[in-house]
Amino acid sequence: MQIAVLLYDRFTALDAVGPFETLGRLPGAEVVFVAERPGPVRGDSGQLAFVADKGLDEVTRPDIVIVPGGPYPDVEMNNPAVLDWLRTVDATTTWTASVCTGSLLLAAAGLLDGRRATGHWMFLDRLPEFGAEPTGERVVLDGKYVTAAGVSAGIDMGLTLLGRIAGDDAARAVQLMIEYDPQPPYDAGSPAKAPAELVARLRASNPLV
Amino acid sequence: MQIAVLLYDRFTALDAVGPFETLGRLPGAEVVFVAERPGPVRGDSGQLAFVADKGLDEVTRPDIVIVPGGPYPDVEMNNPAVLDWLRTVDATTTWTASVCTGSLLLAAAGLLDGRRATGHWMFLDRLPEFGAEPTGERVVLDGKYVTAAGVSAGIDMGLTLLGRIAGDDAARAVQLMIEYDPQPPYDAGSPAKAPAELVARLRASNPLV
Repeated sequence: MQIAVLLYDRFTALDAVGPFETLGRLPGAEVVFVAERPGPVRGDSGQLAFVADKGLDEVTRPDIVIVPGGPYPDVEMNNPAVLDWLRTVDATTTWTASVCTGSLLLAAAGLLDGRRATGHWMFLDRLPEFGAEPTGERVVLDGKYVTAAGVSAGIDMGLTLLGRIAGDDAARAVQLMIEYDPQPPYDAGSPAKAPAELVARLRASNPLV
Repeated sequence: MQIAVLLYDRFTALDAVGPFETLGRLPGAEVVFVAERPGPVRGDSGQLAFVADKGLDEVTRPDIVIVPGGPYPDVEMNNPAVLDWLRTVDATTTWTASVCTGSLLLAAAGLLDGRRATGHWMFLDRLPEFGAEPTGERVVLDGKYVTAAGVSAGIDMGLTLLGRIAGDDAARAVQLMIEYDPQPPYDAGSPAKAPAELVARLRASNPLV
């Protein structure tokens, strides 16, 4: 079982690490971090780089592909090398998954046409451009396509997928190992729960939306 | 405001990324990933490497230090270079923080003597060897020392600390940006909630405990 996690400039670290620390603990799984070119790939703030061990041409038949998001999805949504690779690997994956604005990359590759999907709340309204139907859910499964809401939702997505693949016991074991018993000190984690003024302020601060 | 995140061989990725994606979004903060030697540092499964941009000798006065954990804490608990660095930077930090077994590194450096602390549930009973009093809490503040439970608890710790430093509004804004509205598909994230059989099985599977 090979799980490929796509990296690209200015990805969001937790988008990639959430599924890695959950689904990636699937017994016997090989996780490979892959990018257009192997080597360090720097995330959205410029302060953390992950190493891509493989280039896209070296990973052509993963069982699962995971696409993290980032605050500037348009760059990769217009990168033929990435979109072609997504279409190629999707032809043989058993699951094709995304976190956050990663769903916009899948959508731009034409893979979510006619499907229900989710993504970061601030970018949900762009999914219909590509024929996808956005939902307000945290994790959406439609056929083999699994999309998660923003950033931290990849943890819930990874556990969900792990349960589907390896069973509830395996998923519970991973949840316990990563001590995922969340106790957020605030309750502002979704636009429905956060103060309306805060939601409006964050929307206004994003130059891309 | 400089936030230093320590990296070392076989660290757990989410331990470092949880605080990074929360506290690291503090307006104006500079986050620097630091290791004994600069360059790629590979995590616990060997499948993901982060880049340490600085060596220990290049980061001597961070305002905040964050120590992630990993499944093999004894290696760094017996590494004088790391322990000396922790003691040196702690002399001038405003906050000294850890996630998971990172508290054992702080403890081994002598920094938690007489303090309440937490860490990964499987390693809590080792804290008293170093004079620390383990609690079952997810995030523990004792003076300027902040410790978090296993792996995913670093997200809650980062938001807690962010609220203390920058105020509740700033913390809520980050929670909303990373859409931290957790919806775990299972309820097995702590030894108190998971099936007793599973807790026992995981304890037995760890050769180090």
